[in-house]
Amino acid sequence: MRDMLGREELVTVAEALAILFQHAPFRRPAEILVGLDDCCGMVVSRDIEAPEDLPGFSRSTVDGFAVRSSDTFGASESLPAYLPVAGEIPMGKKPSVSLRKGECVRIATGGMLPDGADAVVMFEHTQLLDEKTIEVMRPVSPGENVIQAGEDVRKGECVLRCGHRLRPQDVGALAGLGITSVWAYDRPKVSIISTGDEIVSPGAPVQPGQVRDINSFTLSGLVSHAGGTALKKGIIEDRYEAIRDVVEESLRGSEMVLITGGSSVGTKDVTAKVINEAGEPGVLFHGVALKPGKPLIGGVVGTTPLFGLPGHPAAVHLCFEIFIRPVLAMQSGAEEQRLEKRRRMISARIARNVSSSPGREEHIGVIIEEREGELWAVPLLGKSGLITTLTRAVGTAVIPMMKSGVREGDPVDVRLF
Amino acid sequence: MRDMLGREELVTVAEALAILFQHAPFRRPAEILVGLDDCCGMVVSRDIEAPEDLPGFSRSTVDGFAVRSSDTFGASESLPAYLPVAGEIPMGKKPSVSLRKGECVRIATGGMLPDGADAVVMFEHTQLLDEKTIEVMRPVSPGENVIQAGEDVRKGECVLRCGHRLRPQDVGALAGLGITSVWAYDRPKVSIISTGDEIVSPGAPVQPGQVRDINSFTLSGLVSHAGGTALKKGIIEDRYEAIRDVVEESLRGSEMVLITGGSSVGTKDVTAKVINEAGEPGVLFHGVALKPGKPLIGGVVGTTPLFGLPGHPAAVHLCFEIFIRPVLAMQSGAEEQRLEKRRRMISARIARNVSSSPGREEHIGVIIEEREGELWAVPLLGKSGLITTLTRAVGTAVIPMMKSGVREGDPVDVRLF
Repeated sequence: MRDMLGREELVTVAEALAILFQHAPFRRPAEILVGLDDCCGMVVSRDIEAPEDLPGFSRSTVDGFAVRSSDTFGASESLPAYLPVAGEIPMGKKPSVSLRKGECVRIATGGMLPDGADAVVMFEHTQLLDEKTIEVMRPVSPGENVIQAGEDVRKGECVLRCGHRLRPQDVGALAGLGITSVWAYDRPKVSIISTGDEIVSPGAPVQPGQVRDINSFTLSGLVSHAGGTALKKGIIEDRYEAIRDVVEESLRGSEMVLITGGSSVGTKDVTAKVINEAGEPGVLFHGVALKPGKPLIGGVVGTTPLFGLPGHPAAVHLCFEIFIRPVLAMQSGAEEQRLEKRRRMISARIARNVSSSPGREEHIGVIIEEREGELWAVPLLGKSGLITTLTRAVGTAVIPMMKSGVREGDPVDVRLF
Repeated sequence: MRDMLGREELVTVAEALAILFQHAPFRRPAEILVGLDDCCGMVVSRDIEAPEDLPGFSRSTVDGFAVRSSDTFGASESLPAYLPVAGEIPMGKKPSVSLRKGECVRIATGGMLPDGADAVVMFEHTQLLDEKTIEVMRPVSPGENVIQAGEDVRKGECVLRCGHRLRPQDVGALAGLGITSVWAYDRPKVSIISTGDEIVSPGAPVQPGQVRDINSFTLSGLVSHAGGTALKKGIIEDRYEAIRDVVEESLRGSEMVLITGGSSVGTKDVTAKVINEAGEPGVLFHGVALKPGKPLIGGVVGTTPLFGLPGHPAAVHLCFEIFIRPVLAMQSGAEEQRLEKRRRMISARIARNVSSSPGREEHIGVIIEEREGELWAVPLLGKSGLITTLTRAVGTAVIPMMKSGVREGDPVDVRLF
């Protein structure tokens, strides 16, 4: 695992992901009971069964007239069926009358079918002959324009499975079934530790040689966005004991630990040592064939994943998207979401020649322009430590590992932020 | 605007959007000052200028040795330059020494360049000859592996423009510049009113003829997800005065008003009347060539948009995505995000023949399957009022307005949820 200069050898992105997931399942957050108003975005931790039929009664799906379908057979515009209107179904109430043969009853969308009716004629397919009689100009078949009791959900049926991340429409469905709280996995807690003797907090005065903490703010936002709860552990001096103590405390109180700033192969880099000595298996890889992001450390202690992130803001962002987000999704209990990645990938043509070193996957910040209906990815030039490249970019174009670059006009995959 | 049965004529989706946006700009939320920990996802309301240069001093971008570049000219593996190591730059401090000609100083990534140095030789391109001397095996040019003071951001430069929605990396950039609070638009407040005499709240017992409130839960989640604040106004009886009073109160206290359940052309449908009598211009369209979602009402009172949504959960969801989300994005102050729609659209082949009525755009709930590397959209069968179709679907396939259906294998656009 070490090259001739004593440095760890690089693994590819795919190898690094495979090594990480060999150590799954990772530590999971506790199950909690959550009310409907707070559960959107959370992951269901137990299968949810319907406590009752939905709908609980046969309902009209249109505005019109409840009928016996047999009374409309053969009706047409030239030979309509004439039906006296025996009344109107009140909304929200069980009809007090039942439908007699040859009659109809006015009903609105969502109204409960009266006894005797088996279909609804749409308002648009009728004419009022007088106040008490309609002409029906089309026949309806049994069950037409009606949702039967239990047709949507049967009592006892599983409506949402363990591992499903609740979307707004799912919460609506729970409300419809009278379910007012659900068991879900709590949001995974992610400890964020900034290291580096040169780092100061954004509100503090900055002296020559010092820089402000960028990465713990970026990481907090990314963690929240990915469904986790960020725990900022502050800025820790670059000393083995200091970092070790915070990592040990973090291992007790969170489901994932992120350490930024200490992963370059520098004199004061102690992250790998801390991870290795915190417990088995320790560091799984140190260095990935990825630009930016090469110095990334991935490790596991017990069942808790830990990452040592490079100090460059662009590298932090990219490593989060490629490595941390999928691990966090698994920890949150969400079933693998195949479509998640596709949702953020678009194809575009690269607007400029870009050279790249074969043997590493390279990501370049881009903006997207539309030219004659085609999407073009325009690379933002700038050194990898620049934050303006990150704030201006709408995503990154990917140059695959085995390519030595792309030429203007070549198709590239763009991962949107 | 009315057909022979006295109903409003349908407008197309494109027409409805155009009519709505003719009445822009809509009412906007107030500007508020937000701290860094709370601003992610909010929209910047004033251009943000850098209060200082970033970086504030010239920094090394690699681990290595700070040098005068002229001392490395012509260096190669066969003829390295020999440089004595005069010391090490401490992290986070201004170097106490300046570099003399012919010497080098050890420096870590992020370290401040000492006076006299103009470049950094990467650690990997050196060999330690003894404890006090290195061999440099490649030359560096002036400025190589260095970010100059102010190279990322110049003091006074605009770093984020009014209308930019803050992403995690933007918050990191603000932190890096020492900006600890920003002016942003407050999240737009959206009043959600459920109407219908048959509607009861999820926690209440349900009688025959009654159904539970689904839509205000779905809409709350969608509003939050789109960056707004949902104000649930409760379930209001289907009576003109009752709905009018809640709408008037909502117009005073929110930036958008959503009314569900009262938009079918039924006897008790008073939403259009309430919107028209609340103020000018009132109802802009009533009925859209869209399935599900045909009975949608769009209106504006003063500068506040109001929508009357059909009662079907699938229609509510689709109308939100097509009409409400873009209006809300504009109200939140966000510049039009061209890529937002593309981010959620994928192409797939439809897995089954689907017929459709020409003259309306139809959306069908689908799941996505991967077959031999290709994506297939499998339509979920079921009546449009069913909530299980919504909870099972991962998106909707779009059948354009002028088509009478699609055949198995035809390409379709799928809008992912």
